[in-house]
Amino acid sequence: MQEWKDYQQKNKDRFLNEMLELLRIPSVSAKTEHKADMLRCAEAVKKSLLDAGCDRAQVYQTSGHPVVFGEKIIDPSKPTVLVYGHYDVQPVEPLELWHSDPFEPVIKDGKIFARGSADDKGQFYMHVKALETMVKTNTMSTNIKFIIEGEEEVGSPNLAKFISENKELLKTDVVLISDSAMLSMEHPSLDVGVRGLSYIEVEVTGPNRDLHSGTYGGAVANPITILAKMIAGCHDENNHITIPGFYDDVLEATKDERELMAQAPYNEEAYKKDLGVKALWGEKGYATNERTGIRPTLELNGIWGGYEGEGSKTVLPSKATAKISARLVPNQSSEKMTELLLNYFKSIAPDCVTVKAFEHHGGEPYLTPIGSKGYKAASKAIETTFGKKPIPVRGGGSIPICHVLEKELGVKIIFMGFGLDNDNLHSPNEKYNIENYYMGIETIPYFHKFFAE
Amino acid sequence: MQEWKDYQQKNKDRFLNEMLELLRIPSVSAKTEHKADMLRCAEAVKKSLLDAGCDRAQVYQTSGHPVVFGEKIIDPSKPTVLVYGHYDVQPVEPLELWHSDPFEPVIKDGKIFARGSADDKGQFYMHVKALETMVKTNTMSTNIKFIIEGEEEVGSPNLAKFISENKELLKTDVVLISDSAMLSMEHPSLDVGVRGLSYIEVEVTGPNRDLHSGTYGGAVANPITILAKMIAGCHDENNHITIPGFYDDVLEATKDERELMAQAPYNEEAYKKDLGVKALWGEKGYATNERTGIRPTLELNGIWGGYEGEGSKTVLPSKATAKISARLVPNQSSEKMTELLLNYFKSIAPDCVTVKAFEHHGGEPYLTPIGSKGYKAASKAIETTFGKKPIPVRGGGSIPICHVLEKELGVKIIFMGFGLDNDNLHSPNEKYNIENYYMGIETIPYFHKFFAE
Repeated sequence: MQEWKDYQQKNKDRFLNEMLELLRIPSVSAKTEHKADMLRCAEAVKKSLLDAGCDRAQVYQTSGHPVVFGEKIIDPSKPTVLVYGHYDVQPVEPLELWHSDPFEPVIKDGKIFARGSADDKGQFYMHVKALETMVKTNTMSTNIKFIIEGEEEVGSPNLAKFISENKELLKTDVVLISDSAMLSMEHPSLDVGVRGLSYIEVEVTGPNRDLHSGTYGGAVANPITILAKMIAGCHDENNHITIPGFYDDVLEATKDERELMAQAPYNEEAYKKDLGVKALWGEKGYATNERTGIRPTLELNGIWGGYEGEGSKTVLPSKATAKISARLVPNQSSEKMTELLLNYFKSIAPDCVTVKAFEHHGGEPYLTPIGSKGYKAASKAIETTFGKKPIPVRGGGSIPICHVLEKELGVKIIFMGFGLDNDNLHSPNEKYNIENYYMGIETIPYFHKFFAE
Repeated sequence: MQEWKDYQQKNKDRFLNEMLELLRIPSVSAKTEHKADMLRCAEAVKKSLLDAGCDRAQVYQTSGHPVVFGEKIIDPSKPTVLVYGHYDVQPVEPLELWHSDPFEPVIKDGKIFARGSADDKGQFYMHVKALETMVKTNTMSTNIKFIIEGEEEVGSPNLAKFISENKELLKTDVVLISDSAMLSMEHPSLDVGVRGLSYIEVEVTGPNRDLHSGTYGGAVANPITILAKMIAGCHDENNHITIPGFYDDVLEATKDERELMAQAPYNEEAYKKDLGVKALWGEKGYATNERTGIRPTLELNGIWGGYEGEGSKTVLPSKATAKISARLVPNQSSEKMTELLLNYFKSIAPDCVTVKAFEHHGGEPYLTPIGSKGYKAASKAIETTFGKKPIPVRGGGSIPICHVLEKELGVKIIFMGFGLDNDNLHSPNEKYNIENYYMGIETIPYFHKFFAE
């Protein structure tokens, strides 16, 4: 469609600058100090939807951060696409590892460095600009709705309620999400699934106060030592998770799927070099992309206890704490797995310490069938702009709301992400390639076109 | 000696207030930001020595924090006692657990709450006030020298050099130290030894940057998990340390000494209640006071890695770090043990991570013979004021300079501490009982009297 290309070419710089403006709002959902920024960001998203051509857009309050809804209805008899995205971002710590201010985007070597550039402001905003392209060129083929939430990075605690209470408002034929990555620009891919999540915190308390490690060392349990033992016992020598029942509900991937996965381009040396490691690590018996795709995992996201300052302090601390999360695969249930983890850590506590464990958030795994109309439209759209049929892959991350969207709205979820694995998501120096941003804006209108056919 | 008692009774309040003034100086040696406070504290100590009656006192610069020396020579033919103490204190973190400002002493229930109250400002200052008592009542029986350093809490890195370069200045017949605890006021005791120390830091690096735990979880080693495994492996199921060679040089305590130790009053229920634990922990086959006295131990003093903030962050961190220290007993060598620990942690690193390990500081263990003139004088002094012969016990803490003092000055070290185990040394809400402070000032002159006899 030459008219799309022409319009986008003409508005290229503005498309970029508008997105950068959104990145400047520090919308960190995990931190209460950013409550006002979250609201400001929601309002900015609403305005961008109206500016792009939505008939209406609205900020809906929730018990947490607000949800932004917008829609452009061309003809109720035409198919509807609901675009899901999120305007909240991950915390930025450790700040000292950033090469530039996380909320003052810097463009270098064709990459936009800023928190949220790829996850997910830069990606959902492609849909806003794709809508504008179609509206302004009078080429819309579907109705389009947007649901852009502000709590994805904290597990979407209020979105399920919003969805179940607004089924009519959100009524659609498919959900389209750009919040994931493709293998590479040379090997475009489409995620056919996301992993689920169970995220907990475990606090081990030994003595009721910090003690002198000389006076009491050897007499009373050190909570760091005990917590380390609890963590260490979670993986055996094959890096298989030892927590009883952990794998019980795993739906094993079929031989066919594993064979298909094995065909995905993968260069172990390049992968290791990019990460700066001499050797990879993971569950024995599975290839790297299987370990990040079809297998559940258990990761330590944080640990702290005792003295972290300069120099030395001979303390035997009172407490040690860890943030621990499991990625889940079909048919594991997040609720069940969270319960399993909480009970496990409490049950293995020796009686020289007290262990408290509580849930942060969770989300169900999700798989989308490659035979669906939505998947086919996405595949054809990618093929049109990239010149190659995309490879179906399993994504390692989690988008907890997928399961709820399918259940409540009765439609399939399509993942059409334009990020790359090395975008430093959730890490210092998050980036999004400008080329990927423009390719997304170019590709999305084709999805609507093919989905309407 | 009624004149001592009378003088001390008359000057009681001033003795206390002067000590509180010293506690108000935040002399944290581990933190460079307190460099000026350290100097200020050294000058205050010097002034207090002159005010108490020293003929001379001087602040000696070192490559680190200064050493304060003072002396009162009554007659070179009389015996000399060198009092060692330290004016530096431990860091105060975690600050939120203090019930009052660590550097604004609060008196409650007969206790002085402040950092350094027991360790060691409040204790070495007893010797300053004991000197004043003897000077003002014209009852000195020995020459007295003071060496009050500013780097004890960071392992006295510059004191050994100062001692070896100033042997004539420090020439003495005995070294007297009040930097330890007694069992209780009802069961006075004298330490006959201190443990040595090897303190290291271990840093585990996995990937070269923080990663998204979904995208990479399962593919690359999590440094927290690896560090936890390294730590967990250090103790077996009997809490015996598994590091090869760790116990090789341990001089086992004799049957006699163990029998004597078993007679020390100990109430396990009261001990557990004070610490708020349901069960104790430690090396199988040894009693609690043996585990903190005659056995070497390995403690985790701090650990950190990944996200420690509010809420959750799904990060697979690049690094995890731990501060680890071993308490040593005769005849373990600190240098050798530090080397052993550094090599051990580097050697067990799997090739999916990089491990760096470096030394913080160390110190040799020390044992003093109970048959020495100094020990007998201390024992008789305690018996005079407490009305009970003190029990000889092995202290769990470390005073790294003891070994150097004996080697360089050729004399024995006597530990006459007036603290209590529950003084919260190195912890929030450090305290020193006013009664103990006064008992120390009352007892010390008797040490000089009996040592001169």
